[in-house]
Amino acid sequence: MEPHIVIIGGGFGGLDAARALAGAPLRVTLLDRHNYHLFQPLLYQVATASLSPGDIASPIRWVLRHQANVQVLLAEARSIDPASRRIAIDPGPADAGRHNEITYDYLIVATGATHAYFGHSEWAARAPGLKTLDDALEIRRRVLLAFEAAERETDAEARKRLLTFAIVGGGPTGVELAGALAEIARQSLKKDFRSIRPESARIILIEGGPRLLASFPASLQEAARASLTRLGVEVKTDSIVVNVDEQGVVYQQTAVGDQRIEAQTVLWAAGVAASPLVKSLGVPLDRAGRVLAEPTLVVPGHPDIFVVGDVCALQQDGKPLPGVAQVAKQQGAHAARNILRSIRGEPLVPFRYRDYGNMATIGRGSAVADFGRIKASGFLAWLIWLFIHIFWLIGFRSRIVVFTEWAWAYVTMQRRVRLITGERLWPGSDERS
Amino acid sequence: MEPHIVIIGGGFGGLDAARALAGAPLRVTLLDRHNYHLFQPLLYQVATASLSPGDIASPIRWVLRHQANVQVLLAEARSIDPASRRIAIDPGPADAGRHNEITYDYLIVATGATHAYFGHSEWAARAPGLKTLDDALEIRRRVLLAFEAAERETDAEARKRLLTFAIVGGGPTGVELAGALAEIARQSLKKDFRSIRPESARIILIEGGPRLLASFPASLQEAARASLTRLGVEVKTDSIVVNVDEQGVVYQQTAVGDQRIEAQTVLWAAGVAASPLVKSLGVPLDRAGRVLAEPTLVVPGHPDIFVVGDVCALQQDGKPLPGVAQVAKQQGAHAARNILRSIRGEPLVPFRYRDYGNMATIGRGSAVADFGRIKASGFLAWLIWLFIHIFWLIGFRSRIVVFTEWAWAYVTMQRRVRLITGERLWPGSDERS
Repeated sequence: MEPHIVIIGGGFGGLDAARALAGAPLRVTLLDRHNYHLFQPLLYQVATASLSPGDIASPIRWVLRHQANVQVLLAEARSIDPASRRIAIDPGPADAGRHNEITYDYLIVATGATHAYFGHSEWAARAPGLKTLDDALEIRRRVLLAFEAAERETDAEARKRLLTFAIVGGGPTGVELAGALAEIARQSLKKDFRSIRPESARIILIEGGPRLLASFPASLQEAARASLTRLGVEVKTDSIVVNVDEQGVVYQQTAVGDQRIEAQTVLWAAGVAASPLVKSLGVPLDRAGRVLAEPTLVVPGHPDIFVVGDVCALQQDGKPLPGVAQVAKQQGAHAARNILRSIRGEPLVPFRYRDYGNMATIGRGSAVADFGRIKASGFLAWLIWLFIHIFWLIGFRSRIVVFTEWAWAYVTMQRRVRLITGERLWPGSDERS
Repeated sequence: MEPHIVIIGGGFGGLDAARALAGAPLRVTLLDRHNYHLFQPLLYQVATASLSPGDIASPIRWVLRHQANVQVLLAEARSIDPASRRIAIDPGPADAGRHNEITYDYLIVATGATHAYFGHSEWAARAPGLKTLDDALEIRRRVLLAFEAAERETDAEARKRLLTFAIVGGGPTGVELAGALAEIARQSLKKDFRSIRPESARIILIEGGPRLLASFPASLQEAARASLTRLGVEVKTDSIVVNVDEQGVVYQQTAVGDQRIEAQTVLWAAGVAASPLVKSLGVPLDRAGRVLAEPTLVVPGHPDIFVVGDVCALQQDGKPLPGVAQVAKQQGAHAARNILRSIRGEPLVPFRYRDYGNMATIGRGSAVADFGRIKASGFLAWLIWLFIHIFWLIGFRSRIVVFTEWAWAYVTMQRRVRLITGERLWPGSDERS
C-alpha cells in the first residue's frame, strides 16, 4: 500500500505541499473546512466592496483536479491523535459521512491563524477581524449599513457615531482597510446620499506601537503614514485599545491617558493566534499558539508530523519568520519534499526562507514595497503591487476578471460590489428581512 | 411644498418609475429592504455558480445618483395606511432611526412577488425558491454541498440520494435551473472528484401541467424539452408534487399515481404570490394576492396609490399580463406618468403592455426565443438571449465583466464561482465551522 499523506488546510501552505507531491507514488488527502482556496492578500478588497468573493477564491478540488494522487475532502479537523495517527473530523451532514476519522502515515498541518483579542474574546462580536471570506462579507455589510443607517438617522450625535470607523491594528491589513475606507467615503459614495455627506466620515487607525507597518523600513513607514493622512485617515500610534463596547472604543495613549471614540463600526486587524487544532498535538507552543518546530518543520517528537505557515514558529538568523503567504508557500513545498526524503530513507533538510520582498497598498495608486536594497513608495510601488498580485492570483480566468475590475474601478473611482447580503437587515435585530 | 412621491421597491418597476420622474418638480423617496437593484433574469446564474452576486446587482442609490429629486432609503415597509397616507417602516438599527413612518402624497407599490408553496409553507425550508440574492447563494450552497457530501459518503444508497436533484416547476426558472445543474454535473465538475462520478447525478424536473414553459408556443416547448433531455435532465410533466420531506419528494402523476424520488436537494420554481404588503391596502386581491387594479394602475378607491409589476393583476385583451420584467418596467414608467398627469389635473391614461418577446435559456449555447411571428431555438436563440441580456444589464461595467465571464465559461465549460459561503458547514447542523 502506498503511504498516505494527509494535509490539513488548503491555504497557501497546504496547496503548495499538495503540488510538491504531484507524480509521487503515494496517496494524498487534503482536508479543508471550506471548499475554496482563498487568496488572502486581496481579502481586504472584498471587505471594501472592490472585488467579489469569486474573484479571489477558487475551489480547491478544481485547482488540484489534474493531480491524480490527491483527493480533496470538505471536512473540519477537530483533533489529531499522534499516537494512533488518527484525525477526528466533523461528522458531516446529518445522515451521511461514515468517514469521521482519517488515518495518516505522514501529516502536514497547515491550518493557519485566527484573530486574537488579547484575551478579550467578548470584543469579537463588536470588532470583526478579516481572515475568512465570511469575515470579509460581514465587514462589507457593516460598513455599507453604517452609511445607510446614517442616511435615515435624524439625530446629529447618532449620525456622527454611525459615520465613525475605527480600525484597530496598523499592520498591512489595518493600513489597507483604512485606506480603502477613506476612498469609499471620499470618492465612491460621493454622489449617492441626500441627507448625509459621506466625505464627513471619520476613519481612525489605532496602532499600539510607535509606527505603522512595523516590519517595513522606516522610510516606507513614513510614506505610508503620509499617504493615509492625505486620504483623510486619522492615525493614532502608541495607542493601545483597552475596551470595545456597544458605542465605540477606548484607547490608552502614552502620556495622554484614556481616549474614547464613539464609533458604530470597529474593525480588528491587531492580533492573530495559531489555529487551535495544534493544541491537540500535545507539544510546546509559543505565546501565539504556534508549534515550536524543528528546522526541518518536523513537530518535536513526531517525525511523521510537519507544521507549515502560521501554525509553525521558526527562527531564522535570530529573527522569527513573518506570518506571510510566501513563508507558508515555501514551507508547504519544503515539508512535502522532506516527506519524500523520509520515505526514501534520506535525511531531512532544514528549511530556509528566501525573502522576495514585502508590500502593502494604501489606496488607489499608492503602495509601499520593500525588496531589500530596492524600496519604492507611491504610484510606482502600487504598479509593482498590482502586477505581482494579478500574476500570482490562482487561475487564468481570475486574472482577466480582476484586471478588468481594477482597471474599471481605477478609471471611475467606483466600487462595484457594494452589496449588503445576509438575512438580517440591521445588526442586533433578529428579524429576517 | 412639492408633492412627495413614495416608491416602495427598487426592482424593475420601482426603478423605472423613479426614472420617469427625473427632472419633475417633486420629491421622490424610494424604499427598498435591500441596498441593490437585482437583475432577476440572471439570478439562476448566481445560483448555479456562473456569475457573482456583484455581476447582477447594483446599489440602487448608485443607479439613481444623478437624479437629484430622488432619495433612496434602506428600509422595509411593514404596512400602508391609505387613510392617513402613512407607511410604517422597520425601526432601523437598535438606537437609531427616528424615521419609522413615512408620509406620501402619491404612492407606487412595486414590491414584487415571493414564493408560494400551495399552502404548504413547511416545504420552504426543504425546497428553497429563487427570488433574492440570498436565495441564490443558499441554492448554490446546497448544490455544491451535495456533491461534497457525496464524495465523503461511503453508503451507496445515501450517495445516490445526495446526487439526486429535484426541481419543482417547469417555467423559465425551473428550465434554466435544470439545464444549468445538468451542465454542472456533466461538464464543470467532471475531473474534480475521486470517489464519485458527478456525471451520474440525476436531475429531475417536475411540472404539474402537460408542458414545460406554458407561456411559449408549442414548437418552442418541444424544443426546450428536447434540449433538456439531451443534457440528461429527466422531465416529468403532468406530475403534481404532493409532499416534500427530509428525504425527497412525492409527486402524483396522472394515471400512474404517487411516485417517490429520494433527493437531498429540492429546488422550488413553482408558485409565486404577491408581496404580502398589499394586504394592508384593504382592497380586493386575486388568488395570487395581487391587487385587482384599474387599467390606469390605480388601486380601486385610492386615486393616490398605484400598483405595478407582480403586485398588480391586470387583464389585456382578455388575458392576464405575465409576471415578467418587461411588464413591471412599462407599468412603473406608466404609473409615474399618470402621477404627473394627476398633479397637472389631467385625466389618467390606461396602461397598455407592448410585448417585445419572451425568452428562456436551457444551457450552454441553447435557448428558446419567441418574438411573435419570429421564433427561434437552439444556438441562434441563445446568441439573441446573450446579447439582449448583456445590453440590458444595468451599468456599463457589469456588461464588460459579465461578458468576459461568459466568454470564458463558454470556452472552458467551467463555473468560476463555486464557493460554499455561509457560517454553517452542513445543512441541519448548528455548528459554526
